[in-house]
Amino acid sequence: MTNPTAAMLVIGDEILSGRTRDANMYHLAGRLTEMGIDLKEVRVVSDDASEIVDAVNGLRSKFDHVFTSGGIGPTHDDITADNVAAAFGVPIGPRQDAIDILATNYPGGHTELNAARMRMTRIPEGAVLIDNPISKAPGFTIGNVHVMAGVPKIFEVMLDGLLPKLTGGDPVVSESVRLNIPEGDVAGPLGLIADAFPTLSIGSYPFSNSEGYGTNIVMRGTRASLVAEAAEKVRETFDVD
Amino acid sequence: MTNPTAAMLVIGDEILSGRTRDANMYHLAGRLTEMGIDLKEVRVVSDDASEIVDAVNGLRSKFDHVFTSGGIGPTHDDITADNVAAAFGVPIGPRQDAIDILATNYPGGHTELNAARMRMTRIPEGAVLIDNPISKAPGFTIGNVHVMAGVPKIFEVMLDGLLPKLTGGDPVVSESVRLNIPEGDVAGPLGLIADAFPTLSIGSYPFSNSEGYGTNIVMRGTRASLVAEAAEKVRETFDVD
Repeated sequence: MTNPTAAMLVIGDEILSGRTRDANMYHLAGRLTEMGIDLKEVRVVSDDASEIVDAVNGLRSKFDHVFTSGGIGPTHDDITADNVAAAFGVPIGPRQDAIDILATNYPGGHTELNAARMRMTRIPEGAVLIDNPISKAPGFTIGNVHVMAGVPKIFEVMLDGLLPKLTGGDPVVSESVRLNIPEGDVAGPLGLIADAFPTLSIGSYPFSNSEGYGTNIVMRGTRASLVAEAAEKVRETFDVD
Repeated sequence: MTNPTAAMLVIGDEILSGRTRDANMYHLAGRLTEMGIDLKEVRVVSDDASEIVDAVNGLRSKFDHVFTSGGIGPTHDDITADNVAAAFGVPIGPRQDAIDILATNYPGGHTELNAARMRMTRIPEGAVLIDNPISKAPGFTIGNVHVMAGVPKIFEVMLDGLLPKLTGGDPVVSESVRLNIPEGDVAGPLGLIADAFPTLSIGSYPFSNSEGYGTNIVMRGTRASLVAEAAEKVRETFDVD
């Protein structure tokens, strides 16, 4: 049995201009790996309608899940919900349950549920809301696309609510072996080990420090016993304790 | 005149598994913005031949430049060069100038230019080498695709050599205004300002701290006078000194 697959779509000019360093990709990658959903691709696109529609449609037809991040706030540049609706060819409009949730956030005082905030109650037809315990404005799931906020704290809390509802696969386990050997000397023998364990992903990551060059070898797979066996083979081959 | 456009392709299972946090995207985005090349899309794909070929061909036909990061080392999982060659439909093999460069790195001692390291001298036909002053193994440019290492220090030094050779556009200047006003109250008036400055990219980024909610407004564009004018309009509209 193979694990479910996923893609991520990050929406936002602020990432592409270098103003903001994306944090959500790294967080999502780790969370999905833990639950056995294989993240296969990430795309970052600008706040542009046709780019968003094309990316959503390209990714949702190819992977079991698509997670989006960014562009669901109250301002003119928040166009994700509209374009996800367009990608699915469904109407979008303010929805009463989203209005009720947002209204609890503005019981009076100096903020109000104005026209801009009402933008955040616009949900594509047929979507299921994703809870946002921090700032209330919900995300949503439509088909296999999960639409979430870009602000990392809110993205993470939305994922906390969403992920337990998804079916995971076999969690991927990994083991690392640190070698004080340059990658170019590791590569030949390591290739033979990789050939001998075709179901594992065996990666090699060079480093350098004051003592010279070295290489971290990382074995990843869903069968812990096989991962352990490959790690032992690496230790044996390169004479590591 | 519009600025040249670019995409980035990050190649590596270690990013998608959450083992490694990508640093090259943020670095490249900032460098391109400085020189007036507009980064329009980023993709992260796994160490998979057909994914790499499809992404290279999809992106190089759509943008003026494609910058890749990762997968050009000596090990079995370094398959970028082969698949960039496949994307262009050209042969690949060891090239004498690359061998000469690498040989200077191994003048004797405990490392040698073995079969694995020879992998790093394999260059697609017609490519131009990109200098690597740190670990010598070169990157290369073929057509409009610039192939570089994934290790951040090496990626950055390769860019240092490459970027001055590319033609930039009008550098994008930006100005920020910090408002101690929740984004939902900023959104309405800000939309009108965005409409009045259609050639600028005006973004809105909410924050929260102990004093409550606020919003950073960022105006970006190639005409500094227009950016300043929009910033002044924001300050005036929201009564900021």
